[in-house]
Amino acid sequence: MNETTVVEYGEKALDRPVMVVGLPGIGLIGKLVAEHLIGELKAEKIMEIFSPQFPPQVNVNPDGTTKLVSNEVYAWNGDEKAADMLILVGDSQSVTNEGHYELAGIYLDIAEKFKARRIYTLGGYGTGKLIEVPHVLYATNKADIIDEVKSYGAIFNEGELSGGIIGASGLILGLGELRGIEAVCLMGETSGYLVDPKSAQAVLGVLSKAMNLTVDMKELEARAAEIEKIITKIKELEQQQQPGPKEFTAEDKYIV
Amino acid sequence: MNETTVVEYGEKALDRPVMVVGLPGIGLIGKLVAEHLIGELKAEKIMEIFSPQFPPQVNVNPDGTTKLVSNEVYAWNGDEKAADMLILVGDSQSVTNEGHYELAGIYLDIAEKFKARRIYTLGGYGTGKLIEVPHVLYATNKADIIDEVKSYGAIFNEGELSGGIIGASGLILGLGELRGIEAVCLMGETSGYLVDPKSAQAVLGVLSKAMNLTVDMKELEARAAEIEKIITKIKELEQQQQPGPKEFTAEDKYIV
Amino acid sequence: MNETTVVEYGEKALDRPVMVVGLPGIGLIGKLVAEHLIGELKAEKIMEIFSPQFPPQVNVNPDGTTKLVSNEVYAWNGDEKAADMLILVGDSQSVTNEGHYELAGIYLDIAEKFKARRIYTLGGYGTGKLIEVPHVLYATNKADIIDEVKSYGAIFNEGELSGGIIGASGLILGLGELRGIEAVCLMGETSGYLVDPKSAQAVLGVLSKAMNLTVDMKELEARAAEIEKIITKIKELEQQQQPGPKEFTAEDKYIV
Amino acid sequence: MNETTVVEYGEKALDRPVMVVGLPGIGLIGKLVAEHLIGELKAEKIMEIFSPQFPPQVNVNPDGTTKLVSNEVYAWNGDEKAADMLILVGDSQSVTNEGHYELAGIYLDIAEKFKARRIYTLGGYGTGKLIEVPHVLYATNKADIIDEVKSYGAIFNEGELSGGIIGASGLILGLGELRGIEAVCLMGETSGYLVDPKSAQAVLGVLSKAMNLTVDMKELEARAAEIEKIITKIKELEQQQQPGPKEFTAEDKYIV
Repeated sequence: MNETTVVEYGEKALDRPVMVVGLPGIGLIGKLVAEHLIGELKAEKIMEIFSPQFPPQVNVNPDGTTKLVSNEVYAWNGDEKAADMLILVGDSQSVTNEGHYELAGIYLDIAEKFKARRIYTLGGYGTGKLIEVPHVLYATNKADIIDEVKSYGAIFNEGELSGGIIGASGLILGLGELRGIEAVCLMGETSGYLVDPKSAQAVLGVLSKAMNLTVDMKELEARAAEIEKIITKIKELEQQQQPGPKEFTAEDKYIV
Repeated sequence: MNETTVVEYGEKALDRPVMVVGLPGIGLIGKLVAEHLIGELKAEKIMEIFSPQFPPQVNVNPDGTTKLVSNEVYAWNGDEKAADMLILVGDSQSVTNEGHYELAGIYLDIAEKFKARRIYTLGGYGTGKLIEVPHVLYATNKADIIDEVKSYGAIFNEGELSGGIIGASGLILGLGELRGIEAVCLMGETSGYLVDPKSAQAVLGVLSKAMNLTVDMKELEARAAEIEKIITKIKELEQQQQPGPKEFTAEDKYIV
Repeated sequence: MNETTVVEYGEKALDRPVMVVGLPGIGLIGKLVAEHLIGELKAEKIMEIFSPQFPPQVNVNPDGTTKLVSNEVYAWNGDEKAADMLILVGDSQSVTNEGHYELAGIYLDIAEKFKARRIYTLGGYGTGKLIEVPHVLYATNKADIIDEVKSYGAIFNEGELSGGIIGASGLILGLGELRGIEAVCLMGETSGYLVDPKSAQAVLGVLSKAMNLTVDMKELEARAAEIEKIITKIKELEQQQQPGPKEFTAEDKYIV
Repeated sequence: MNETTVVEYGEKALDRPVMVVGLPGIGLIGKLVAEHLIGELKAEKIMEIFSPQFPPQVNVNPDGTTKLVSNEVYAWNGDEKAADMLILVGDSQSVTNEGHYELAGIYLDIAEKFKARRIYTLGGYGTGKLIEVPHVLYATNKADIIDEVKSYGAIFNEGELSGGIIGASGLILGLGELRGIEAVCLMGETSGYLVDPKSAQAVLGVLSKAMNLTVDMKELEARAAEIEKIITKIKELEQQQQPGPKEFTAEDKYIV
């Protein structure tokens, strides 16, 4: 395989769908949201993307069968309230620089093929510290939809994201703009150290409002509760190690 | 040389052979098994693969002559019990990401050309600790041959290999599945620190059963015994350094 | 997007312009000068260059809108004293080795299209220490313009720049020579640790003389003054930490 | 510039020349020998090779003019004793893996164009310690010229070079063999820490014998003497720091 290959599974009629992109990234937030949506909506797999820009790897299922690293596109037919949806999810982003550009171009081809009305790319925003109530930040390639996006609960403070947005989540906005495809990136605040289902819940909350969707969040809540327990444990352990009278440790490397 | 080049040495008729792949990897297990098989079966070299995806290197033979880094394909005509065989062995895997995909594709082209009935890729599974009796793990791209593979002595415990299988051994399964070629990866448990002929023996044991082969293992046994001696020595040295009363060392970096 | 793409915004007539290149590099000197010139001269954006050789990134504007990483070309119609100008500025240089060569070739194509009479590439020269009065060093791909360049105030001491000039600033000279395009690199001395508007001022001084331009430097002066304050603060703090009787610190790692 | 470009300077008739390759590598030995030969023989530059596989860099001459990183081919018409010669020398080897293969292929194209009778690639062999009398090791892609090569003073001990030969020096042998071009690699023993004109002298001694050349070595001897002085100085300094009563230093990190 020398070129990126898109395998299509039959035809699927969609009416100007919204495309949601949840690829692996900080806190795994985008991927958690996309997988949760696919599960809850019982979306249907319509495409699979293989690429020499992905790592040379198979993943192993619980029964010992293997699955080549890929990205997948799922489709969902909306209802009287919510628009049709394309959901892009996957095992990996590109591992090469040029590959990022190539793959983002292919995702936009898919959006164009289905005449997608908008793209939401989902990700995390690393803050370096544990966040009690994660905000959801937005960025967009179209100034005149900012008020709309704010109305869904996303925020943006001047000076944030000064390092830019790296990877598919950002590139889809940048390359999308050149093609006239409107796109919004929603980023949940997250420490950056852990898989973060709580921040994923926050992102899903904003996305649900934007899509006029009602999605059961029980599974994400359960996963968030688990992670919460782990964090509490870590904090307890840290407190037990609070210094009474100072003692030397290998980490100190100095003498009083 | 700007492209991967396959040099063929004459024609060789094979009847739906099994392809065995033993390239360098953890513990050198796959390579040890493949080279042992080639030697014992007196298999015949029929192809050599050169590629700008391999390192820019020649190896030097004991007499000072050089050999460009390559992969090689050997052929063996089976007998009334064992099927014909193709054995892929070599000095290196690809050093670039895309090269892994390109080369795995070329290996599958060779399998298809010879109408290979199945591919076994051989490798190691690093456990991080010394293993007394190494198991052989399997993974496969075809669910309905799992019971057969288990009957040869390979095992799989749910949750293992959660990091996936990286490199040619995995990619041949992943890309093979897309082409409808059934493939099994056999991985010998190994510490990850040493060349491991003992684990190679275990893998060869499973493969021999699968192939209905009887192969003399003396050479592998001798190499395993040598390595065993080295390990015993290391353990002795470690025990002699067991701490009596604690003394400061350069590693301690602190003071009581 | 699999290839570097140049988007042109209308036609612009220029009479044998001088091309000025200010891309990100040490001390951000070239970029500071080029952006300052664009602002002061109210130069007009005529081209934008996007490339898979740039990082896969969008930058985020203060209002939350995004901008794909790019390089931009601005044009300015000179006056009775100063020649017409092309100014190349941008967010990034290539992140791949081959990309550097490809992009430098594209910049030279643009220079040739406009029949540029000369190219000035601007950058910094890292000295590793704080510089009170930064000199401006030159290098050129054409020996017989050296005296002219010196007359603008740039200097060169034998043995300097022995490590060569890396990146677009150098490559445009090297590849330009092969095409018969004369080019000069102007490098402001800089510590290498900080954005350096003071060194940018020095480079702009030389360039203004070369271009017969009068440019208001107030903005650069203000930024230089700010950085100066920061440096003074750092020096004060360092002096306060001057050792009286030696105390142990984590950095010492030893005992007297 | 998107592709490797060979610029030819006029025609030069050569009668089955020997090609000598001295590119940058360990101890700069190959480059020192090739440059010395070019200077002493007053060889004529006939080709220059530019490539996006080289670093994106210009070097700066003592007068401030620049020179794009390249490789160069020089030609020399032999005499009644010595054969004609092609000498390849340059600023850099490829910085990418595939580039190494591409460039070695181009060097072999040049050898074939001139019907070169043999190629000598020159380099160093790092031993990790200072060598008083450096040997010259050989490796070759043709077994039946080993005795001849030994007669010139090069040696080879079984088990040496077990790590192979990496880069152009090795690849020219490997790819040359596939094209039926006989080639020898001569490697001077060297510490690996310093430019090594003394080892270059040793390699030039073997090459001169092989070529039936008489070359003045004064310049190399002078450079070797300079380096020798530096080494002596280093050794003196080390001896002065020999411990009398042990004192703690930052390097010690422990306490007796």
